[in-house]
Amino acid sequence: MRKVFQDELAQVGEELIEISRLVTGAIEKATESFEVADVDLAQDVIAADARIDFLQNSLDERAIDILALQGPVASDLRMIVGSLRMSASLERMGDLARHVAQLARLRYPNNVIPAALQETFKEFARLDIEISKKVTELLETRDLNVAREIAKDNMAVDELHLSVFKAIAADDWNESATTTVDVALASRYFERFADHGVSVARKVSYLVNGEWQSDEFA
Amino acid sequence: MRKVFQDELAQVGEELIEISRLVTGAIEKATESFEVADVDLAQDVIAADARIDFLQNSLDERAIDILALQGPVASDLRMIVGSLRMSASLERMGDLARHVAQLARLRYPNNVIPAALQETFKEFARLDIEISKKVTELLETRDLNVAREIAKDNMAVDELHLSVFKAIAADDWNESATTTVDVALASRYFERFADHGVSVARKVSYLVNGEWQSDEFA
Repeated sequence: MRKVFQDELAQVGEELIEISRLVTGAIEKATESFEVADVDLAQDVIAADARIDFLQNSLDERAIDILALQGPVASDLRMIVGSLRMSASLERMGDLARHVAQLARLRYPNNVIPAALQETFKEFARLDIEISKKVTELLETRDLNVAREIAKDNMAVDELHLSVFKAIAADDWNESATTTVDVALASRYFERFADHGVSVARKVSYLVNGEWQSDEFA
Repeated sequence: MRKVFQDELAQVGEELIEISRLVTGAIEKATESFEVADVDLAQDVIAADARIDFLQNSLDERAIDILALQGPVASDLRMIVGSLRMSASLERMGDLARHVAQLARLRYPNNVIPAALQETFKEFARLDIEISKKVTELLETRDLNVAREIAKDNMAVDELHLSVFKAIAADDWNESATTTVDVALASRYFERFADHGVSVARKVSYLVNGEWQSDEFA
């Protein structure tokens, strides 16, 4: 019985890692479709998001079954509750990658982002992909140094987000209203994606330490 | 022992209702501060959001304690897991009310929204407040007719959100880039707020029916 239980717990952990890998694939493809205005790639991301949602639901059902049938306590219980929370964050990251792809599809064959900000958004993409990969690594290794790197990458994302809003507010900004809104929303999607990565990092820290590391990752 | 357990479950339910009431107060004040450019009121909302976050954390800790100490099964387990999910949605609704108040504070003494769209945003405010009140009513009564009304109000919110983006994209839109971004983000905050209300409604339906009503509230 105990063996079965440990196998089930391990499977929840594996499923989280699988979802996290799919999220990395989604943000990689979404940002590429966004950068090069590739509508087919954007369409792939949008279609693939349904699989992330399905896996999240199935992970949650499994976690609830474990709670019902095994009545876990202490660190096992924390792990199950933490998994429910992490799967919600990962599912949101998948949604945000889909939003980026949807913008690419909406403006095809044009680019969403005007030339002057394309380098900024490449850096956004690089950091979000980095964060997503580190989330998978963190789930695999529970190495809290990785959690700290995620928090640091997120600070760089916040600075980019601020710089975009400054660019929009500057006197020499002369893009159309539609482009302005696209830029602002895209910036927010990238920023929220990184934020959810930090949420997962916080939850892993909670599992490792048994308490929330709210200061370090605030 | 059983009596203590039922009391604890009831207390989790009471705390959800309390958080839901605070969220209604937050969105009422946030939208008023937003409409009349009242910076003091906006400040109140921003400060009060910390209490919603605190109550969410304390509810979650209580729910985890119940899982650990009582090992609930069947409908009690569903109620606890549902509460963890609903508290996360309510906390996000509080955040979004705070974002609205932060916009009001940022643009004070000016209005965030240009004259031509102020009626639209009054209707947004009315619907979001309505949804928030109905969420409390739903948590109190478990009456699924209320859940259906929330889904209906949310559709009206989605239409407003679409109309704002159409107005921004129209040829006669001539607001500054900063105002354009404010309008787009504010519209998104109101739309997300309503969406989270629907999430809570879905979860209550799950508790009442024992299965997710994904079609009805999709």
